[in-house]
Amino acid sequence: MDYQAVLEEVADRARPLVRQGRVADYIPALECVSPDRFGIALTDLNGETYGVGDWEVPFSVQSISKAFSLALVLAQEDQSIWERVGREPSGTAFNSLVQLEWEQGIPRNPFLNSGALVVTDRLQTLTGDASTALLDFLREESGNPELSFDQAVAGSEAEHGDRNAALAHFMASFGNLENPVPSVIEHYFWQCSIEMSCRDLATAGGFLARHGLRADGTRLLHARDAKRMNAVMLTCGTYDAAGEFAYRVGLPAKSGVGGGIVAVVPGRCTLCVWSPGLDARGNSVAGAAALDHFTTLTGWSVF
Amino acid sequence: MDYQAVLEEVADRARPLVRQGRVADYIPALECVSPDRFGIALTDLNGETYGVGDWEVPFSVQSISKAFSLALVLAQEDQSIWERVGREPSGTAFNSLVQLEWEQGIPRNPFLNSGALVVTDRLQTLTGDASTALLDFLREESGNPELSFDQAVAGSEAEHGDRNAALAHFMASFGNLENPVPSVIEHYFWQCSIEMSCRDLATAGGFLARHGLRADGTRLLHARDAKRMNAVMLTCGTYDAAGEFAYRVGLPAKSGVGGGIVAVVPGRCTLCVWSPGLDARGNSVAGAAALDHFTTLTGWSVF
Amino acid sequence: MDYQAVLEEVADRARPLVRQGRVADYIPALECVSPDRFGIALTDLNGETYGVGDWEVPFSVQSISKAFSLALVLAQEDQSIWERVGREPSGTAFNSLVQLEWEQGIPRNPFLNSGALVVTDRLQTLTGDASTALLDFLREESGNPELSFDQAVAGSEAEHGDRNAALAHFMASFGNLENPVPSVIEHYFWQCSIEMSCRDLATAGGFLARHGLRADGTRLLHARDAKRMNAVMLTCGTYDAAGEFAYRVGLPAKSGVGGGIVAVVPGRCTLCVWSPGLDARGNSVAGAAALDHFTTLTGWSVF
Amino acid sequence: MDYQAVLEEVADRARPLVRQGRVADYIPALECVSPDRFGIALTDLNGETYGVGDWEVPFSVQSISKAFSLALVLAQEDQSIWERVGREPSGTAFNSLVQLEWEQGIPRNPFLNSGALVVTDRLQTLTGDASTALLDFLREESGNPELSFDQAVAGSEAEHGDRNAALAHFMASFGNLENPVPSVIEHYFWQCSIEMSCRDLATAGGFLARHGLRADGTRLLHARDAKRMNAVMLTCGTYDAAGEFAYRVGLPAKSGVGGGIVAVVPGRCTLCVWSPGLDARGNSVAGAAALDHFTTLTGWSVF
Repeated sequence: MDYQAVLEEVADRARPLVRQGRVADYIPALECVSPDRFGIALTDLNGETYGVGDWEVPFSVQSISKAFSLALVLAQEDQSIWERVGREPSGTAFNSLVQLEWEQGIPRNPFLNSGALVVTDRLQTLTGDASTALLDFLREESGNPELSFDQAVAGSEAEHGDRNAALAHFMASFGNLENPVPSVIEHYFWQCSIEMSCRDLATAGGFLARHGLRADGTRLLHARDAKRMNAVMLTCGTYDAAGEFAYRVGLPAKSGVGGGIVAVVPGRCTLCVWSPGLDARGNSVAGAAALDHFTTLTGWSVF
Repeated sequence: MDYQAVLEEVADRARPLVRQGRVADYIPALECVSPDRFGIALTDLNGETYGVGDWEVPFSVQSISKAFSLALVLAQEDQSIWERVGREPSGTAFNSLVQLEWEQGIPRNPFLNSGALVVTDRLQTLTGDASTALLDFLREESGNPELSFDQAVAGSEAEHGDRNAALAHFMASFGNLENPVPSVIEHYFWQCSIEMSCRDLATAGGFLARHGLRADGTRLLHARDAKRMNAVMLTCGTYDAAGEFAYRVGLPAKSGVGGGIVAVVPGRCTLCVWSPGLDARGNSVAGAAALDHFTTLTGWSVF
Repeated sequence: MDYQAVLEEVADRARPLVRQGRVADYIPALECVSPDRFGIALTDLNGETYGVGDWEVPFSVQSISKAFSLALVLAQEDQSIWERVGREPSGTAFNSLVQLEWEQGIPRNPFLNSGALVVTDRLQTLTGDASTALLDFLREESGNPELSFDQAVAGSEAEHGDRNAALAHFMASFGNLENPVPSVIEHYFWQCSIEMSCRDLATAGGFLARHGLRADGTRLLHARDAKRMNAVMLTCGTYDAAGEFAYRVGLPAKSGVGGGIVAVVPGRCTLCVWSPGLDARGNSVAGAAALDHFTTLTGWSVF
Repeated sequence: MDYQAVLEEVADRARPLVRQGRVADYIPALECVSPDRFGIALTDLNGETYGVGDWEVPFSVQSISKAFSLALVLAQEDQSIWERVGREPSGTAFNSLVQLEWEQGIPRNPFLNSGALVVTDRLQTLTGDASTALLDFLREESGNPELSFDQAVAGSEAEHGDRNAALAHFMASFGNLENPVPSVIEHYFWQCSIEMSCRDLATAGGFLARHGLRADGTRLLHARDAKRMNAVMLTCGTYDAAGEFAYRVGLPAKSGVGGGIVAVVPGRCTLCVWSPGLDARGNSVAGAAALDHFTTLTGWSVF
């Protein structure tokens, strides 16, 4: 398949939608990104990466970091994280406290804010510095040693972080945090603030398409764990629109309110698309449309 | 692949679990099935069907009928059903009224009881006799003209049907039913009472693996709709254990409290497994284990 | 105290508000009442009744019937009804199914629709004809043998009764109804359709101010039960505005969407006020204001 | 009435129940109180105080402080607190986050933990030191300058305070706190830790029976506000058992998990009873029984 040609056609179709979404404005530091940005990249099984548009422009990964934090925890220890976080879609808004109360402090899945706080907490215990550990991991997997945190974004998150603090204290009240709440929240904010381009993210996520292998053949995750991560991404990766996303696109994916979406075609390739305009549920409008066009053109949905 | 050999190995591994589950007892007519039953069947792209164990013994399809009702509605008219039922996993128990109240009478997905009542209601409008229409459809697609309703089961459902009546009246209060509540409920119960074997169900569900085509090459559903049905089955098909099922098995599937599970390997084959012992969430224990072994042996999860 | 003068002053102050509320329109038969109606009546300990305005014009009692059904059940048997219905305020909308699901089919209190259906069900078991029994009781207690059902209202309720049918079937699914759902619902609708004037209702409710005694000194309820009914009316009698009503008026009361409110000054008198315009929570705007003026003028809140 | 004799009879009847409840153990500092303690005090309209048993032994006031914080805010400024907290019973557990989410950060009433945090926050804004302000107020109103905080209790609360921190951060995320979360929580814990005896509390709460007047005739609250506080205590003062408490006892009351209950007979007297053994909803078992006996003996329920 001529990936470059496919990406160009996808971009041509999706780009007209960039102004339909709304740039995230819950923290000031995200508001100033231009809504006209659009980029898409694809990494194949050999680690070759193709791209179109703003595919080399760094943006705030936000919730996409949740997928890589989980991978890093799974790479370091076996299944113990699953005793503290579930694997079911949530059915309600991504930061809802209701379900957390019903389920006694066990988040439904690792891609809810609550679940990601538990994963960050575990990573903190395992590494002593969850945010630096994640940054080092992403530098290594993306092959880009320049990756860094965005201090303005991290600070802005902290200033507007009462909802996440509530989630963390609530889980702590059920005994489901190992580290002090302020430390967990801080590392979580730093993780979300990492800046990466579509090229970086597609490259770093290549192992998800290779059943756990890196492009050089070394193993990052067990094949079983890579498949399971894809399953959790498909059922829980796009906030409370996961059912709709599976119906429309049919690929495992993890989105972030920075406008990025990483998607996986198991056994074939990993994609990352970026466009800052979001729909009401927090997913990139042009990004989702691009992935929809991609699966239509290639026939490569998992279904 | 030697399907017969694979099914035999799968059966050998899963059969020891038949006594671990618990036969459905919410209606008397289901209680008397022997927990020792185990059967599995597979239909390939050519319509060839393989089987092991009790694969030709009819059982009560129960909620598996929901997938076929939906297919029949989608085959008869375009996307209008999706205005009355969503496509998101529910996050709560399969017959919960809570979510229905939050969402103003629009069920989250067509595989909740509430959603299936809406689909049955639509089928009733389209055909004038939703249960007979479904039976005729299943006879045709399975190639088995002997398929029939189980009167004892349908009657037993009706006697214990207050929860479903509550759901139907509740949706009617929001204006989301077209036909009288008693009629919708009755047809719904008859649909659930249909008896089919693993052979019948795997054969009838073959179109899901063939992107909408029957074994003879005629088209039942648009490729797009067949893929979308698989997506909804993967995210919503196994009650509130869909996330877990995707994580563990990784195939689109629809289960029923009769102990059957239909699963799809898109582009390859459709399976049906049956064992009456259920886990706490209503899915067959040995059936889920069999599908888990199948994907492990073949490497054919969608992830 | 010169009751007639007090009522006249109260009426003068409250009447200007009659157009601020909105006449109930959920059933056609209630819509056609003039919003300009206003009446108030007061029955003292001797059974003397005073009134102003439209105090002798019959209106639809609606949920006020719930208080009298409860009294009739309590008069016929001791505390057994409390095993099937609670005594706590609900905190949510008066016909919410959510709380009923959380509490496994036991309504929070007898003045929710669900709770009143349980009371009607019990009355049906005790008398064989719950609606006629209530009508006979109200004729007797009001001294008005002309009281009757409004067939148009009862029929209209039945046509728009899916929400109540859902509640009843839902409770039946938890085993909390003794009689068939259609019968319970029908008697419930007939009870709500009874027409009474402020004079009738104040007179019939006199026992609540007399600690269970009728004006002639015969006993209808134990003093203890009359006091307890007042307690339940104060905490649960005005839909989900009970806290606000206690705060503002400070009297036990039961309201109905026909625009009537019965209120009790324990040890002194029973009032009934009527004005069809309702606030967003279903309580009469001018009626609540009248009771507020009454307690301000007399100093007779229970607090 | 011979108050001393009444209190003695009440104590004789209630004391046998002291071992039926369970001493609060959610913080270690409360666990060590002897379950055998029982005291009761009554302050009449003239400020004369009567008592029986351990009526002069200080105990941890816990949630009873919520009533006095509210009074202090109402004494300092008019109704503005009611824009930030409601007056409706909650219908769910006293520290539930669910309702707070539904109602967008506005607590249902000032006696929920969430509501009391808002009141403390307001008191902090008004006084600059909410806990000292409350202590000074209670010393003044009780006439006991020895009242003090219990440092062990306050520290213990803080160590186990994640649930309250979650509530506070959650409200802050809706913009419903004026002061920094850690400061609000700290003052809240100090308020709860104040130690007072039945004598102190009955004396300090005398204004609630005197329609806002102190025993010396000076005014603390408007009559209207004192009555309204009684209304809120009746509908919301005893956790999620307020309906039951109104039904059984029929007096405005505020309870605490230290085992104290302050109750009001408007126009007659204020009572305080103490016994550390709690029922499942957090109210003193022997204390509630004592108040029940008191209203039975005197006939002085508000109903």
